[in-house]
Amino acid sequence: MELEFIEWLHEHVPSDPRARLGLTDDAAIISLAGRDEIVVTTDLLTDAVDFQLGKHEPHRIGQQALGANLSDLAAMAAKPVAAFISLALPRGGGANLSALELAINLYEGLLPLAAEYDIAIAGGDTNTYDGPLVLSVTALGLATGRGPLTRAGGLPGDWLLVTGSLGGSILGHMLDFTPRVREALLLRDRYNLHAGIDISDGLALDASRLSNASGCGAVIYLDHVPVSRDAVRLAENDGAEDVSAVALQHALGDGQDFELLLAAPPDVAQAILHEHPIECPVTHVGELIKQPGLWKRTDRGDLQPLEATGWRHS
Amino acid sequence: MELEFIEWLHEHVPSDPRARLGLTDDAAIISLAGRDEIVVTTDLLTDAVDFQLGKHEPHRIGQQALGANLSDLAAMAAKPVAAFISLALPRGGGANLSALELAINLYEGLLPLAAEYDIAIAGGDTNTYDGPLVLSVTALGLATGRGPLTRAGGLPGDWLLVTGSLGGSILGHMLDFTPRVREALLLRDRYNLHAGIDISDGLALDASRLSNASGCGAVIYLDHVPVSRDAVRLAENDGAEDVSAVALQHALGDGQDFELLLAAPPDVAQAILHEHPIECPVTHVGELIKQPGLWKRTDRGDLQPLEATGWRHS
Repeated sequence: MELEFIEWLHEHVPSDPRARLGLTDDAAIISLAGRDEIVVTTDLLTDAVDFQLGKHEPHRIGQQALGANLSDLAAMAAKPVAAFISLALPRGGGANLSALELAINLYEGLLPLAAEYDIAIAGGDTNTYDGPLVLSVTALGLATGRGPLTRAGGLPGDWLLVTGSLGGSILGHMLDFTPRVREALLLRDRYNLHAGIDISDGLALDASRLSNASGCGAVIYLDHVPVSRDAVRLAENDGAEDVSAVALQHALGDGQDFELLLAAPPDVAQAILHEHPIECPVTHVGELIKQPGLWKRTDRGDLQPLEATGWRHS
Repeated sequence: MELEFIEWLHEHVPSDPRARLGLTDDAAIISLAGRDEIVVTTDLLTDAVDFQLGKHEPHRIGQQALGANLSDLAAMAAKPVAAFISLALPRGGGANLSALELAINLYEGLLPLAAEYDIAIAGGDTNTYDGPLVLSVTALGLATGRGPLTRAGGLPGDWLLVTGSLGGSILGHMLDFTPRVREALLLRDRYNLHAGIDISDGLALDASRLSNASGCGAVIYLDHVPVSRDAVRLAENDGAEDVSAVALQHALGDGQDFELLLAAPPDVAQAILHEHPIECPVTHVGELIKQPGLWKRTDRGDLQPLEATGWRHS
C-alpha cells in the first residue's frame, strides 16, 4: 500500500519552496530564509513489523528507533542536532514491564546512542493506549559546508561504494547497527561525492532508488557484494543447497543494513578505496550507467536485469 | 504515568545547549549556530484516546492532528514552516475504509489546514500494522523578530488574557478548532507579551503551568471565564442542577480548547482589550501574583485555592 500512497502524495501534496525531497529521499531539506539547510527525517516503528516486543529487549528497540533516524541523517551527510521521541505505549506495558518501565527501558537504549552521536533528545510525546508499542522518532540535522548529499546527483560512470557488509540483519544487526554518521560526514567533507543513500531496504532496491533519482541506471557487480556473516548464517539456517547464492540474495534484498551506498566519480572512488579514510570496510560494488534500470554484472562480465527485490514497507 | 515519566526524563535526559524547553514547554527551541531559532513540536494521537475512529470522520482526525501542532507553534508565536506526518494504520483499515483510503482521508483533512496556515507537508512515514490508528505529527516553526514566546517570563501583576471561549470541546471543537496562529503572530509582533501557552489540557492546569514556569502564582477570576456554549450544553446534557457552575467546571478543566492564554503587563493587556487587534474575543481572565499556586477569585473578591483539574494525558 505504501507505494500507492506515495503516488497519491506526489499528486496531492503541493510543492513548497521551503521544503524539498521529503517525500522521496531519506529526509527532507528545509531551507530557512536561505540560510541554514536543515535536514529532517522521521521514522515510525511498530511492534511485530519493525521489531518484536517480548523477543527483542526494549532498550535495543529504543536504540534501533534512534539509530534508523541517525542513519537517514548520515545518508544526507547532515550533522545530528536534535531528536524528538514519541511513544504509544500499551496501557498494560509489555515484555513483563509496566508502561512506565517500558518507556524507561526504551530511553535507556537510545540515550547512550544520542550521547555517542551528539544528538540532543529535545522533546517528544508519551502516551498510553490500548494497542501495540509504536515509536515515532523525528531527527533534525544540519547540512555541512558542501550541503546535503542526496540521491540525485549521480552520473553515468560513477562508481558505487558501499560501507560494511550486507544481509541477514534480522539476526541482530537491525537492532545493533552503527549508524554511519561519522563516516558520512568525513567522506562528504573530504571527497567529491555525487549521491548517497542509506541501505534500509536492501542494496538492490536502494541502488535502484539512487540511480532513478540520479536519472540513470545502476549495475551491481554480484561478485563484489560484501556479504555479511549473518547473511551466510541465514542461508545455512535456511538449509540452502547453494549457501553462497542464497547469502548473496540476502545481501541484495534484506532490509535494515543501515550501511551507506555512495556514488562518486571513479578517481574519487579510487582515492577513497586507496586512502582508507574511515575504519569500516568500503567496497566497490557497482557503477552508474546511462541505460536506466537495475542490472547485475555476472562474473563472466555480461549485464542482465536485476530485480529490485528489497524489503518494501507494507 | 506521564508525569512520573516526565520526572524520569528530567533526571536522565542531559541538557544540551542546542535545544531547550522541549520537555517542559509546548515545543522545543532549537538554536543553530546562534542564527535561526527553530521551534519544534510533536504530538502523537491514538485511537480511542484522542479521537474515535468510526465516530469521528477521518478527515477531521487528520485536521485535529495537524491543528494541535499548529496550536503549539502558535503558543510560542512561531511561524509555521513544515510538518511531518507519520501514520500507523490498522492493516485492515477502519471506519469502512481500506488502509489506503484511510490514509488518504486523513490527508484530505489536514492538507486544507496546511494550505490555510502556510505550512509545508514536508515528509513522514506511513506504515500498516496490526493495531489501532496512531498519528504522529511533528511541526517546525520559525521564531519571529521578538523570539519565541515561552511559558516563562510572566511577572506578578501581569494580566492573563484568553482567546475565544472554553470548555465542552468534546462536542466537536476538539476536532474543528481554529489554531490561533495568526492571532499569536500578530499579538507577539505588536505587543510586549511576557508569556504564553495554548490551552490543551484545560484553563486551570495550563494557567498553573504558565505561572509555575514564570516562578509565580496565578489567580483566575471565575466570573470572567469565557464559558463556551458547548460547555453549557454539556452541563445541560449532564442533567446538572446548577448548569452554570458545571459549565464553568468544564471551562476550567476540559482539554483541547486550543485557545491561547497570554500574560502581559496591565497596560499592554488593556491596550489589547481596547484595540481589538484580532477578530476573536479576548478576555481578561485573571492575573499573575507573587504567591505560588493556583487561586480563584470569587465574585466576592476573596482568593481561594483552585485545583488544577485539567485533562492530564494518561
